[in-house]
Amino acid sequence: MITLLTDFGTADHFVGVLKGVIATISPNTPVVDITHEVPPYAIQQAAFLLDQSWREFPKGTIHVAIVDPGVGSERRPLLIEAEGHYFIGPDNGLFSLILATDKPKTRHLNQPKFWLPNPSTTFHGRDIFAPSAAHLSSGIKPAKLGQLIADPMRSPALTPTRLSRRSYVGTVLHTDRFGNLITNFPITQFDTLRNRPFTLMAGLNQVELYATTYANCPPGELCVIPGSSGFWEVSIASDSAARQTGLIPGSPLELTLS
Amino acid sequence: MITLLTDFGTADHFVGVLKGVIATISPNTPVVDITHEVPPYAIQQAAFLLDQSWREFPKGTIHVAIVDPGVGSERRPLLIEAEGHYFIGPDNGLFSLILATDKPKTRHLNQPKFWLPNPSTTFHGRDIFAPSAAHLSSGIKPAKLGQLIADPMRSPALTPTRLSRRSYVGTVLHTDRFGNLITNFPITQFDTLRNRPFTLMAGLNQVELYATTYANCPPGELCVIPGSSGFWEVSIASDSAARQTGLIPGSPLELTLS
Amino acid sequence: MITLLTDFGTADHFVGVLKGVIATISPNTPVVDITHEVPPYAIQQAAFLLDQSWREFPKGTIHVAIVDPGVGSERRPLLIEAEGHYFIGPDNGLFSLILATDKPKTRHLNQPKFWLPNPSTTFHGRDIFAPSAAHLSSGIKPAKLGQLIADPMRSPALTPTRLSRRSYVGTVLHTDRFGNLITNFPITQFDTLRNRPFTLMAGLNQVELYATTYANCPPGELCVIPGSSGFWEVSIASDSAARQTGLIPGSPLELTLS
Repeated sequence: MITLLTDFGTADHFVGVLKGVIATISPNTPVVDITHEVPPYAIQQAAFLLDQSWREFPKGTIHVAIVDPGVGSERRPLLIEAEGHYFIGPDNGLFSLILATDKPKTRHLNQPKFWLPNPSTTFHGRDIFAPSAAHLSSGIKPAKLGQLIADPMRSPALTPTRLSRRSYVGTVLHTDRFGNLITNFPITQFDTLRNRPFTLMAGLNQVELYATTYANCPPGELCVIPGSSGFWEVSIASDSAARQTGLIPGSPLELTLS
Repeated sequence: MITLLTDFGTADHFVGVLKGVIATISPNTPVVDITHEVPPYAIQQAAFLLDQSWREFPKGTIHVAIVDPGVGSERRPLLIEAEGHYFIGPDNGLFSLILATDKPKTRHLNQPKFWLPNPSTTFHGRDIFAPSAAHLSSGIKPAKLGQLIADPMRSPALTPTRLSRRSYVGTVLHTDRFGNLITNFPITQFDTLRNRPFTLMAGLNQVELYATTYANCPPGELCVIPGSSGFWEVSIASDSAARQTGLIPGSPLELTLS
Repeated sequence: MITLLTDFGTADHFVGVLKGVIATISPNTPVVDITHEVPPYAIQQAAFLLDQSWREFPKGTIHVAIVDPGVGSERRPLLIEAEGHYFIGPDNGLFSLILATDKPKTRHLNQPKFWLPNPSTTFHGRDIFAPSAAHLSSGIKPAKLGQLIADPMRSPALTPTRLSRRSYVGTVLHTDRFGNLITNFPITQFDTLRNRPFTLMAGLNQVELYATTYANCPPGELCVIPGSSGFWEVSIASDSAARQTGLIPGSPLELTLS
């Protein structure tokens, strides 16, 4: 099984073309879309969305992730093996969270015989990444596709910074369809929010309520909720916390514990 | 085969995650998207879209439908068997039109062993609905998944109300991509529109023309057309009746027969 | 394998319904979406997107393409065989580029026994095109589905017009997700842009730079790039040339060679 996660959108032929290339090389491999609506060039958000989804798939799944502002430049095409899954895409930090798993193996996809002939400089999804995934799926061994490398690009992990004994600066990792603000405060690390008073500054909004679920958050109020993502989320029942606060991915947050 | 109809959108990881969960439990089950663009929390529109699509699929298909503002509250997860199809989702009125079919059987999905472990309070699609559908697809009997119940939630059917001998108040069920306004006037019940004068007030617009097809409606005019949905639709050739009238799902309509 | 390319959008039940109809007639045929986001009624853009995608699929693939403002009128439903691929959709110019391939065979789909019973006047995708594709996929011979015709509709090919010895008028074929303007100047025919000075007027913008790839275009500048589409594209690094120029599909372009 191959999954696709890109910033290609679904209005062009790009995604269909990837699937055609895969079907031509490896006709019986099912292909599943994670999303193609990553904002153009938003590598960080793509890294978050990939991290949220790959573990739900069976071992052996090949995850193709493409957000690639440097296409055509010297950035390397990669194949990573981690926890029994495979990851294919550009070497630009998109796989930072995968590289933080236990003993990943990273290869430089540098064997043109597994690409389409005469690759373009602008559509490596079609010409390099999709054919590599399809060949891997059809049984070609990783070692044939490229040699091991030790220096894949890693973005600084988006973990909160401690400001003082009781306060932290964090960030919005993602805003979802429902307007929930997914923060980078891990639930497990900040489990204290369940029991003790806190103040989370989200733009001009002071959030001091904790709720176990959307339905338990008082109407019209911003609440902090233990999200399905594993991170604390800022939410408002049946409305958009993103619209309410004006925050976007990358906006800063300040958390003060009591 | 499993179909998915949600308000999750396609910009997040949610839909990909459902497919990963299903593939892990039941690897060979094809999954088909109906739509994930139901407006957030729009239960009524989801009910309409589900009603328009499920009959086109083969018997035995499992239809997962999730628009779930009450996720994490006491609302029950359901499995309904109707006309040889299966339906899985929250007990909030989304299945009202399914429950109106001949002798549906409704079960309360209350067997956690068929869910993911430690279900979250915010993403029952991943934790309860998708795994239940996958287990059903892989051969688990409905009776194992939960016990029969007699009181699933039903929304008042969206049928037109008679105002006087010749006039009815109806509503817009849905506005589609092309701007057609799908009304709740069934074609069969209001077949008279084909032959006799009528006035349909759609906002400030007085619609008095009938056309068999979009191409037969005079340019720039609003027409009433027997839609593929089984309901009368208000349309305008190569333009958007929704934009022209300003009406949205839930807007009232008044029909006067001559 | 069946591909789908439509202007149906993904917010309605339309695409799901096509897949249900296909699954009912031909349960094991994989269905792949090219795109459903063709702007409503944009036949020309659909023709471009189809042309960009079909060759990437294996021979024998059935491509269903539906942008059909004339649905319900006298326009014919077609089946075209070209270069080992099949194409199904309305006779309105959508297949102009397919008809320009070597010896295509075109049939009029006029055998209602391969349609759904009682076809509507507004949704031939469901009632005629999807069932025809599914029957073809399940082994029905093309000749059974309809008789050969010689006069399918062809749009005037969107090729540049020569204005003078050194200047040409072209057009924008498509603007993609990244804001690249795909022109109708074929790379091979205008290969001289790589080596010799030129001026491309794109709205009020004078484009005089050539770059091999997005990453090589100076920040903030419009460049002409040999696109993966086979046509010259107007691009701006990590930004939208479409927004910058205000051009849309159909906008004129003027190219002057030195």
